[in-house]
Amino acid sequence: MGDVPVKRTSRDIRTANRYEVLRQIIAHSPTSRQELAAATGLSLATVATLVGELLDLGMLTEVGFEDSAGGRPRGLVAVNASGGALIGVDIAETYVRVELFDLALDMLARADEDMRPGENRPEQVVAHVAAAVGSVVTQAGVEGARVLGVGVSVPGQVDRDRGVSEYAPNWDWHDVPLLDLLSEHIAYPLYLDNPLRACAVAELWFGAARGRGDAVVVNLGTGVGAGLALGGGLHRGVSNSAGEWGHTTLVLDGRLCHCGNHGCVETYVGAPGIMLNLRELSPSSPLLHPEDQTATIDALARGVAAQDPVALTVVRDTARYLGAGISNLVNVFNPEVVVLSSWVAATLGDPLLNEVREAVARHALKRPFAATEIVLSPIPTDPVCLGAATFALEGALQSVSQRGASVSRPRARAGPKG
Amino acid sequence: MGDVPVKRTSRDIRTANRYEVLRQIIAHSPTSRQELAAATGLSLATVATLVGELLDLGMLTEVGFEDSAGGRPRGLVAVNASGGALIGVDIAETYVRVELFDLALDMLARADEDMRPGENRPEQVVAHVAAAVGSVVTQAGVEGARVLGVGVSVPGQVDRDRGVSEYAPNWDWHDVPLLDLLSEHIAYPLYLDNPLRACAVAELWFGAARGRGDAVVVNLGTGVGAGLALGGGLHRGVSNSAGEWGHTTLVLDGRLCHCGNHGCVETYVGAPGIMLNLRELSPSSPLLHPEDQTATIDALARGVAAQDPVALTVVRDTARYLGAGISNLVNVFNPEVVVLSSWVAATLGDPLLNEVREAVARHALKRPFAATEIVLSPIPTDPVCLGAATFALEGALQSVSQRGASVSRPRARAGPKG
Ligand SMILES: [Zn+2]
Ligand SMILES: [Zn+2]
Repeated sequence: MGDVPVKRTSRDIRTANRYEVLRQIIAHSPTSRQELAAATGLSLATVATLVGELLDLGMLTEVGFEDSAGGRPRGLVAVNASGGALIGVDIAETYVRVELFDLALDMLARADEDMRPGENRPEQVVAHVAAAVGSVVTQAGVEGARVLGVGVSVPGQVDRDRGVSEYAPNWDWHDVPLLDLLSEHIAYPLYLDNPLRACAVAELWFGAARGRGDAVVVNLGTGVGAGLALGGGLHRGVSNSAGEWGHTTLVLDGRLCHCGNHGCVETYVGAPGIMLNLRELSPSSPLLHPEDQTATIDALARGVAAQDPVALTVVRDTARYLGAGISNLVNVFNPEVVVLSSWVAATLGDPLLNEVREAVARHALKRPFAATEIVLSPIPTDPVCLGAATFALEGALQSVSQRGASVSRPRARAGPKG
Repeated sequence: MGDVPVKRTSRDIRTANRYEVLRQIIAHSPTSRQELAAATGLSLATVATLVGELLDLGMLTEVGFEDSAGGRPRGLVAVNASGGALIGVDIAETYVRVELFDLALDMLARADEDMRPGENRPEQVVAHVAAAVGSVVTQAGVEGARVLGVGVSVPGQVDRDRGVSEYAPNWDWHDVPLLDLLSEHIAYPLYLDNPLRACAVAELWFGAARGRGDAVVVNLGTGVGAGLALGGGLHRGVSNSAGEWGHTTLVLDGRLCHCGNHGCVETYVGAPGIMLNLRELSPSSPLLHPEDQTATIDALARGVAAQDPVALTVVRDTARYLGAGISNLVNVFNPEVVVLSSWVAATLGDPLLNEVREAVARHALKRPFAATEIVLSPIPTDPVCLGAATFALEGALQSVSQRGASVSRPRARAGPKG
């Protein structure tokens, strides 16, 4: 017992290198093998092999040559955007959003489905997802055979290997076999994870964590958590539930959280927590829309822009909690960058960011603070859909690696498409 | 900017594999290459190469053969304990302890130097370390040329590349060039780090984190922190200051900490924090030795054994804070094991552990809690000295790897020995 070693196999390395090369090409197309070698630190021979594999798969395409000073012309490669399609599914508390991307991860189609309050049985959610997936494929006019996979993000704790939503707090879901249910309607390979990891992988591939050693992606929405991009990859923990920073204690014996603990970060800086901060400060404030989180956060953002003193105070109070909570992440992880992501961060924007930076400066230790940048997510679209689609891309690349080694095929679903 | 990729080179892998093979051999000598391959998941060819290198270095020795069913006899290798010596230095707030180990990491000699209150100028500390290093080499009768290196642990934040103690809170040290000062007295290669990482690497090589995917080593002494063994290696952060869990906020606006923040974990569960827990409960308790942390913690341990109600309450109160703080680590990291290390944990032992387990069960999320074991460190000796010596061992192995690739030699110090 306890003697099973941790294996870092050469296959892990090949997969990580393949991700790294493809990330570079997606960020900087067209590019040469020489530029890729310089940017990734890999040898030219390794880059040439990986590029060859991606060309064979139709994920890349040769797009001509560039002159090199005195040498022979260098071949240029680019992402073969039309070489396949990827679908990202963001199952949120009040809506389902589905986006279809080409291989350059440019969005080609989107479908939104609203969920009414109480409409949260698994079958209902699955029906919305299946309808929206069908819609984006039709809208984009993509052949089904070109869809490489569907990444699905569902809030809460997820067993990705079994495709099970183990616990979704807002709906009180326990052990819902979501991928099995979805596979009755969707014939593409399916990959399940949660929004923390979707946002983190989106930042890692396309956002502020790209090329950074260690990054923490702080998700501020209805729920709150931290996606952990350590050493260039996701830290998932032993049962894929790492990053539950929203349920760390910040105020011992503080506000009761739906998880059963008191004083969790989420109860102060998630959207319902921010509404409570507002209500405690000014119970009859016109900024408060008691049944509507989005309307309240929007009203706060407009209030801050108009220098409304209540709005300014609420954002400052929220930033004080958030700054203390982010300082905890800075002191524990010593990351290169902390990225504020999700809709509450996007809506409150720079005024929140500036207050948070000041609060972190007060709470964190000097050495890790000096090494950390705190930024808003630069991703202009829904990072959860983008990250979920990226899981599908990673899944496709992983399955290549496995096929190459004659190992089992990816989790492909054979059920009829609904 | 931000586009520098994270390189995982094949040299990193070779070094990690070399560590893994040596860890296995140290744990299970003698052993065969076949057993090593089975235990590490490496190929027999890779194991044979690594074993050959370690034999060439004199770190291993051939010790005979074992029969294999029907096949030819298998060669057995063991650690060549006398093939070299490693020294670990634990610079603590009130003492310096130095231990000398053979290559099997069995301790051969120890020297302790007490530091009087106020005796904390860098020159004074360096003099104690130099004297104790000289003492253990003499005691053990080891030739100087066989000392592969000296690992030095100093509390606080450390720049290991430059060998500088950037901030040692208890002495208010700032940017002390400790390795340069030590190199004027000590001629062996020197390696600097802090007790959090020393304890973590000790658990990783010899203790409860060995073979575990992700482990958090909670250090409970005068200061408090968490060593992070993630994916089989130390997580250091971008400026080697990760793991400062002792300075995460647990009680917003709580007790003032010497770091300037309020409500840090350390102010409730470090030895001075536990003394304050006792003082707040029972200001005139005979358990309290106001100027002596060790005597107070010892008295609490004896009080718990004797079912003294004040001692029981103080340990329960402390475990409540500690349990909430450890729950934060469990929820964020989702580790396989949490190890309680250092002298406060060792002194309070199982009664503290049992209360902590109950408190974590109340605070943590179910899924990560179910995946986590919480244990006392099984290392019977000073884990800081053992971990510091392990840094020297890692340094020696690393320098082999670098010499093999014709890269620069390790940080060897050429000054005369004092
Ligand atoms: Zn909670
Ligand atoms: Zn502190």
